Amino acid sequence: MTLNVLIWHEHRHEKKNKIVASIYPDGMHGALKNAFKGHDDFKVDHALLDDDAEHGLSQKRLDETDVLLWWGHVAHGEVKDEIVERVAKRVWEGMGLIVLHSGHFSKIFKRLMGTPCALKWREAGENERIWVLNRNHPIAAGLPDQILIEHEEMYGEPFSIPEPMETVFISWFEGGEVFRSGVTYQRGAGKIFYFRPGHEAYPTFHNAQVLQVIRNATRWAHNPAKAWTGIHDAPNVPHDKAPVPLEIKGPSLHAYGEEGFR
Amino acid sequence: MTLNVLIWHEHRHEKKNKIVASIYPDGMHGALKNAFKGHDDFKVDHALLDDDAEHGLSQKRLDETDVLLWWGHVAHGEVKDEIVERVAKRVWEGMGLIVLHSGHFSKIFKRLMGTPCALKWREAGENERIWVLNRNHPIAAGLPDQILIEHEEMYGEPFSIPEPMETVFISWFEGGEVFRSGVTYQRGAGKIFYFRPGHEAYPTFHNAQVLQVIRNATRWAHNPAKAWTGIHDAPNVPHDKAPVPLEIKGPSLHAYGEEGFR
Amino acid sequence: MTLNVLIWHEHRHEKKNKIVASIYPDGMHGALKNAFKGHDDFKVDHALLDDDAEHGLSQKRLDETDVLLWWGHVAHGEVKDEIVERVAKRVWEGMGLIVLHSGHFSKIFKRLMGTPCALKWREAGENERIWVLNRNHPIAAGLPDQILIEHEEMYGEPFSIPEPMETVFISWFEGGEVFRSGVTYQRGAGKIFYFRPGHEAYPTFHNAQVLQVIRNATRWAHNPAKAWTGIHDAPNVPHDKAPVPLEIKGPSLHAYGEEGFR
Amino acid sequence: MTLNVLIWHEHRHEKKNKIVASIYPDGMHGALKNAFKGHDDFKVDHALLDDDAEHGLSQKRLDETDVLLWWGHVAHGEVKDEIVERVAKRVWEGMGLIVLHSGHFSKIFKRLMGTPCALKWREAGENERIWVLNRNHPIAAGLPDQILIEHEEMYGEPFSIPEPMETVFISWFEGGEVFRSGVTYQRGAGKIFYFRPGHEAYPTFHNAQVLQVIRNATRWAHNPAKAWTGIHDAPNVPHDKAPVPLEIKGPSLHAYGEEGFR
Repeated sequence: MTLNVLIWHEHRHEKKNKIVASIYPDGMHGALKNAFKGHDDFKVDHALLDDDAEHGLSQKRLDETDVLLWWGHVAHGEVKDEIVERVAKRVWEGMGLIVLHSGHFSKIFKRLMGTPCALKWREAGENERIWVLNRNHPIAAGLPDQILIEHEEMYGEPFSIPEPMETVFISWFEGGEVFRSGVTYQRGAGKIFYFRPGHEAYPTFHNAQVLQVIRNATRWAHNPAKAWTGIHDAPNVPHDKAPVPLEIKGPSLHAYGEEGFR
Repeated sequence: MTLNVLIWHEHRHEKKNKIVASIYPDGMHGALKNAFKGHDDFKVDHALLDDDAEHGLSQKRLDETDVLLWWGHVAHGEVKDEIVERVAKRVWEGMGLIVLHSGHFSKIFKRLMGTPCALKWREAGENERIWVLNRNHPIAAGLPDQILIEHEEMYGEPFSIPEPMETVFISWFEGGEVFRSGVTYQRGAGKIFYFRPGHEAYPTFHNAQVLQVIRNATRWAHNPAKAWTGIHDAPNVPHDKAPVPLEIKGPSLHAYGEEGFR
Repeated sequence: MTLNVLIWHEHRHEKKNKIVASIYPDGMHGALKNAFKGHDDFKVDHALLDDDAEHGLSQKRLDETDVLLWWGHVAHGEVKDEIVERVAKRVWEGMGLIVLHSGHFSKIFKRLMGTPCALKWREAGENERIWVLNRNHPIAAGLPDQILIEHEEMYGEPFSIPEPMETVFISWFEGGEVFRSGVTYQRGAGKIFYFRPGHEAYPTFHNAQVLQVIRNATRWAHNPAKAWTGIHDAPNVPHDKAPVPLEIKGPSLHAYGEEGFR
Repeated sequence: MTLNVLIWHEHRHEKKNKIVASIYPDGMHGALKNAFKGHDDFKVDHALLDDDAEHGLSQKRLDETDVLLWWGHVAHGEVKDEIVERVAKRVWEGMGLIVLHSGHFSKIFKRLMGTPCALKWREAGENERIWVLNRNHPIAAGLPDQILIEHEEMYGEPFSIPEPMETVFISWFEGGEVFRSGVTYQRGAGKIFYFRPGHEAYPTFHNAQVLQVIRNATRWAHNPAKAWTGIHDAPNVPHDKAPVPLEIKGPSLHAYGEEGFR
């Protein structure tokens, strides 16, 4: 089975900042594509904020996507609300979502979490040690007991997210902080993974272990079932079509078969 | 300690529908107030959709509220988005929230859950049996092993909510469906309880056991800690103020002490 | 990849009771094998309580098992504690476990849950409706929105289990009760699924939808990673082999490299 | 309301090791009692492994206990299995349990978790920083954003416990490891909190913030409801006493009102 991956990237830093441009000459989305190189079960494409009026995320394209990766930072606010709602709906219907690093403050992640998703941060190029909590979790496949990243931005707790379904990774930072750096969620039929590392000023997305996590998570987030398009609806089940057919008792406000309020 | 309870009610059905008006002559909010009658540790007030331009939910009023109850149905769409955001923020800061019945489709509940919150329904006045899963949970205090409600609207699974922190009640319906009718969540510092029964066409909020649950849940949702007003912020921790002070290594995009992107 | 399935069965009722023997002429394990018929990615075998002194569960056999199914009832007490510990260890190391029906009171399920796992019951041959909460969950693949079983034993809440990772199914019973009839857990590297139906006096394990769930759950519970054999150990990390090497400060009770107490 | 606290302590190190004896001249249980000093709503006592044949944990005493604290290390194996079962039963019935530090390997904690509860460790007197994830959680009341402990034993992930209900604290260690150092569970009617710090070779239980956490957790773990003594039972609900009375259909194995197998 081929797994359709779409890498969504803001793609602004690379255009404005020489450091970022030099680290990611093909854009961060280009580096992220390497996660899937040589693995024939993935078909990978990208969409960029400035691609078109829909940020490259037409309904058709989302419908054809199994797992969406998301990296954004300076331009969270430019992502249109209607596109965010469109993506959220596809997640609920079963599309997997991998949110990377500064994507913690993306509209789509905050929308799906229902919390502020705030955290502490510091850009000092310090060591990050990403510890694996369950080495047999599919997202941790093939990893050693920790991933050491020489230079990374620090993200520190409290990270105001809902209690995760699973905490897969916790990070240690040289400067003294800790962070839940790999967390999973189920929202409707969609599986969501947030993964912390990936600051634009460091070559994190050239790190083979980081790419391994992203590839693992993409496999994990894939739901092969047919899209659950009915998840948004609140159907009426008339009394005479109840599993155990009923006579109506007591008063009624709704006429037979009427739609509910919303 | 006095617990400040605010009952928010849409208050539309009572004005337009004779059945509802006859069941709830003082409004559903009036009936809900009876949950706290004779319990001196509560100070109870109400706010209605049409109270004023802020639906009775000024910042000041929310700041003074420990636990907010929410009933809405026909007019979910009339609640202003900015007020919804204001309420969400207070929940994250620590205000408790009790969402009742058709409030499953309220903007505030969907906002905090990050899912569609859809379900199946039927208005046939059938029996509902609300089973207690953990009789020692504070929300179940004083209840028998089930609450039998003679006439209720059916809500049926799938209920598209995130996996609850705790499933406190599950309902059985005469027509053959089941529903997770009492579920808890923690979002930021705020505790959230969704409670299923309470259709406007039936006298559910005159049922002493239902009121007992609402009173219990209000106590449970109360967080006596000072509001966590910083939960929305992403503060920078400069390298020289790190718990373990650091020298900056590698390249930097942010100037010292600069605010993060959002 | 071939998935090695071992069906463990008590196999007592079939020998003593004519009704059970007539429903399950090949034993319940024989009927359960049909779940995998025609699916070449499974290699299925069975082990019975009275097979040998180890109940057919030698260490070697468990080591070669990817997913273990468990049905027991009258003879829970005859399963040796050391075999229970052996099975628990394999689950923690990554073997999947599917516990069926009366297995809720098996030693292995209670051992892994750490709770009483008690429930209410009634043998009246009543209708059971097993509702699907997330139709895109791998365990629900291919199912309609409910499984109707004409005659089943009732199991009723409260079911004293830990809060599940996911509640996949909830049952409705004709006599008025409800039950969380499909629940998932992660314990160490092992995935656990409890599935309610399967009373010996009814032909439940000849029901194609029930068998579909069992096959789905077996696939879901399979962890392809190498066994996590170190999960039981508490290794010392000497100060000079710490990720960040340290000098020892303060007093010490343990000699260098010594094993911990247990 | 008075809250009855029982501090269970192994009390062996203090008798055999001069360092421990000098740090805890009144025993570690003596130091732990200071957590409740000046707080009149607690009535505190202790029980020691060598108190009597029941380790000071008679049924009567447990029945009178609201919250039990547990510290053990070298003598986990000496705690009798029947006493462990007795304590587990009381937890399921509603007694709170606070497990401290090396108690992660106590029989009672492993019994209630159903997992190995293993971890990595190092005794080097290094800095531990215990970060607060939700400052408004009752267990974190009155704390700053982190507790710094100058000298502590390191415990490192992976900590083989079930996914917690809530992760309240995560620790950072000077040597490079991280650890989920404050985690909550609900088992039956009982609330359980595991708290990491408290190595016998350091004066951790003289640290006011550590004692504050222990006092907070004790309040949090207290379930004021009457003991749920029926939680261990699996009662039969005869067909004619079903919520919706039934006629028996299909074959039966159990005689009317008979007890279930166990």
